[in-house]
Parts: sequence; C-alpha cells; structure tokens
Amino acid sequence: MPAAAMSADAIAKLLHEIFPQGFYPGCGLAIERVDYANVRVRRHFQENSIRPGGTISGPTMMELADFAMYVAVFSAIGPQPLAVTSNLSINFLRKPGKGDLVADARLLKVGKRLVVGEVTIYSDGVPDPVAHVTSTYSIPAEA
Amino acid sequence: MPAAAMSADAIAKLLHEIFPQGFYPGCGLAIERVDYANVRVRRHFQENSIRPGGTISGPTMMELADFAMYVAVFSAIGPQPLAVTSNLSINFLRKPGKGDLVADARLLKVGKRLVVGEVTIYSDGVPDPVAHVTSTYSIPAEA
Amino acid sequence: MPAAAMSADAIAKLLHEIFPQGFYPGCGLAIERVDYANVRVRRHFQENSIRPGGTISGPTMMELADFAMYVAVFSAIGPQPLAVTSNLSINFLRKPGKGDLVADARLLKVGKRLVVGEVTIYSDGVPDPVAHVTSTYSIPAEA
Amino acid sequence: MPAAAMSADAIAKLLHEIFPQGFYPGCGLAIERVDYANVRVRRHFQENSIRPGGTISGPTMMELADFAMYVAVFSAIGPQPLAVTSNLSINFLRKPGKGDLVADARLLKVGKRLVVGEVTIYSDGVPDPVAHVTSTYSIPAEA
Repeated sequence: MPAAAMSADAIAKLLHEIFPQGFYPGCGLAIERVDYANVRVRRHFQENSIRPGGTISGPTMMELADFAMYVAVFSAIGPQPLAVTSNLSINFLRKPGKGDLVADARLLKVGKRLVVGEVTIYSDGVPDPVAHVTSTYSIPAEA
Repeated sequence: MPAAAMSADAIAKLLHEIFPQGFYPGCGLAIERVDYANVRVRRHFQENSIRPGGTISGPTMMELADFAMYVAVFSAIGPQPLAVTSNLSINFLRKPGKGDLVADARLLKVGKRLVVGEVTIYSDGVPDPVAHVTSTYSIPAEA
Repeated sequence: MPAAAMSADAIAKLLHEIFPQGFYPGCGLAIERVDYANVRVRRHFQENSIRPGGTISGPTMMELADFAMYVAVFSAIGPQPLAVTSNLSINFLRKPGKGDLVADARLLKVGKRLVVGEVTIYSDGVPDPVAHVTSTYSIPAEA
Repeated sequence: MPAAAMSADAIAKLLHEIFPQGFYPGCGLAIERVDYANVRVRRHFQENSIRPGGTISGPTMMELADFAMYVAVFSAIGPQPLAVTSNLSINFLRKPGKGDLVADARLLKVGKRLVVGEVTIYSDGVPDPVAHVTSTYSIPAEA
C-alpha cells in the first residue's frame, strides 16, 4: 500500500482554499483519517438536516458521501481540484437518528481517467450502516 | 392519465408544514408544474452552490433531484410525508454554468410499495441536460 | 441531429465479425432501427430465458440493455469495438410475460471519453416499460 | 451472526428444481460457500463468454452478480423463489482474462420487503476486483 498522496491537514487546507463556501471552520464537515485510497470523514449533527420522520435527510448523506469520495481521490492522486463526480449511486439502508454521521470511503480502482470507490455511512456509534454509496470520479485529461 | 393527486400549491403547503427547515420562502426551491407523475421544479441560483471550476456542485443537483422525486411521489399518491428514498443514482453529464437549475421528474412505476422515477436536470435555457437521475422511493406499509 | 455514423446493416456486419459468439444468425438479437444516438433492438423470445414466476430473467434484460447501448455507441461514434461498459444500472419495473423484448436506447451525452445513455425495455406490444437502464461506456483513448 | 437459513447443498437443490433451465449440472455456475448473508459463487470459464478485446463480457458478470445475490437472499431468508431483483448497479473495474470468475456477495440490509447487498467479482487468483455490484431484491409480500 503506498503512502497517502496528501495528509488530512493538507487536504483540509486545500479544500478551504479552493472551496471556501463548502468547507470552512464550522461547516460541520471534518476529515478524520486519511490513508492511501481509504479515508474517514464526519458530518457533525445539525438540526436543519432533519427531515420528516425525525431522521437525517437523504441529501445530507449524499453530500457527505461525495465529500468522502473527493477526499479519497486526493488521498490517492494528490491535489486535483477539478476532479469531478461522474456518477454517484446511493442505497439508503436504515434511518439514522439525531447524531453525527461517519463515512468511510475506499477506492476500488485508481485509474488514469476514472477513480471508482465505495462509501459506507454510519450513524456514529451504531454498527449497522445507514447508507452505502458507489461513485466514479473523472480525472481531468491533463492530470 | 389520471389527474394529479395534489396540486402544486397543496404540495408546497404540505412541504412547508412538514419540512419547514428544508422548504420555506426564500429557500431557493420552487415547484413550477405538477401533473400526475410528472412535475417540474426549480432551484434558483445561489452563490454558495458554486464548486471549484466555477460550476454548480454535485450535491446541489442531487438535492434538487431528490426534491423533484418527492414532489412527483406526492403528485401520484398524495400526501405521504414518510415516503423515503431507497435508491438514487445520478450521472453528471455537463457542467452547468451560473444560473437556475430546472428538474423534470417523471415516474416510471407507481407501485404499492415502490415508486421509481427518472429526473432530468437542465441549466435554465440550455437544451442539453446537465444531469440524469433515477430514483426509487419506498412507500410506508400503511400507505 | 447528425446522421448515424453507421447503418443498422453495417453495425450488424461489424458485430458478427468482431463478436461471432455473441451475435450470429439465430442468436435471438436483432437491430431494428439506427438513428444517431438513438436505436431500437429486439430480443426474440426464448424459452430458456424464463425464470421462476414465469417471467423473463433479469440477466436476459441486462444483456439486451448492454447490447442496445453498444449499438447506440456505434451509431454515434462509429466502429469502436473496444468501447467498454464502465457502469450499468437497471431498475426492474414490471414482470414481462412470454414474448419478445424491445429496447430503445438513447444517448444523453457523447463525450470524447465517456458516452452516457438510457435504455427503456418493453415487452413487445405492452405500453408500460418493464425495465429502465442507465449506462456509461468508456471510449478507448486512441479513439 | 445467525446461522445460514439454507445450506449450499439445499440452495443448489432448490435452484435446480425451480430454475432448471438456468441452473443444472454443467451450466458453469457453482455455489462454493454459504454463510448467513454472505456467500461465494463461481462461474467456470466458457469460451463463449469472451467479447472483443479478449476479455469476459459484461453480461456474463452481471448474470454472475445476480446469481450471487439470489443465493445470498436464500442464505438469509430461506426459500423464496419469487424474490426478484428490483435494482442492480455494476461498475466494471478491470478486464478479466480468460479464467474462472469468483463472486462474493454480502448483504447490507435484510429487511422485510427489501434486501440490499453488494457483490465483488474477482478473476480467480487475481487480488484486485474486476467488478463491483450493488443490488436490491424485493421480497414478496406474503413472505
């Protein structure tokens, strides 16, 4: 297993520079662990994520999964801010209660043009996952 | 084609009651047209939706697609706030510029337990779609 | 709309040359119509496609969808036998009875590296679709 | 972890009874291991699975994934021949060479109405997966 192409701190710094409206102190997203092609991120609980039924909304989980994949892409190929999602498919498995969400992303393929990964989302402290995601990122040609 | 089970106004009123943190005046989401199993919704442009590269972020489109499906489910089976997304799969096709997004949802199957639909997202005024989504909603057993 | 890059006959001839074990007289697959990025193919009914419940098996529909996409890719970019599926996602909507299946493929994006399309599968003569597919093909770099 | 609801032998016997045209001695499919919600199946190599480029065709892998899920469903909920695939999404990761395919299916959720799982497909003896699948089965209401 190679070393991560960027550390968690370096990725957080980069994200804050390139995407200040999406990643900033207090935005609720945090990078917890970065290994090569394998990362953990967290979404701190926010009341406005609640949807009817008292559970966290689907878009909150989709955003977290996409964030986890973005971080995982950086962990494998380094700073490529223009890498973009080409596909994301999510299965919602269980309704999370009010609490933090934790997402583990793992890349299945790191190609020159496409990176494919899966993300498993948990309600913090609960063993069974609340959602499972597969996603493909497209890497710019000049990368 | 049967008539819509709820009008656009009735769906907007319901959403505001059951999901006040997600749908409120000024939230940027609007319901433009509701026919049976066939609806159009809009996301007004907001600067904080921009991601690196000057395009609108993927999660913004995923949220819009999920909203479009939720409205389409109501158009077909009436007020079922506890209908939940079980699957959503999105393909990003082109990068939208800075402008409103329009989403057309069309249901492919309205079953007792599952509703399946597709959503096509456009950058307002541009003919080629920016994203295509398929999604399944699960309808509560008591429905 | 540009003209199709290849005719139905030219595609059938190519497929028979490059993929003789998959496409041959009597194989049950037929190309019915080819326009640019928009094709119709057919799967003649075969008893060995039946699965428990008296309906046609899922893999039969997946194979047909993949075939439809392959033909649609040729219709848009010409002979690229090494174009390969990178993603296919199918929703099964209704159980087809014993009869031919017809698949309409329509490309949503024809890019240099990725082609994205959707396929709708019908039981011949029945208006409501039996399955809906989205799929991405990857085009070889030298293309 | 509960015990498997059916053994590998019992599942093979059931499949041969209910689906004789799909599962029979010499069909090329084999059930190698069955634990609760966690199974391994194999596709013996067959020349007619080869597609242009000298690799195994996508539909061969989709059929294997669907078979793996079907066996996994039986491992968790017992004999339910009328369980049907409602969604299957596959990402092709690498081109398998000429050899057996091995598929590991793992269920992520065993609900009353829906079973969700993932399948990882390998070329026998090669560590990196050739395809990754997520799939949802719908369980008949009377189940």
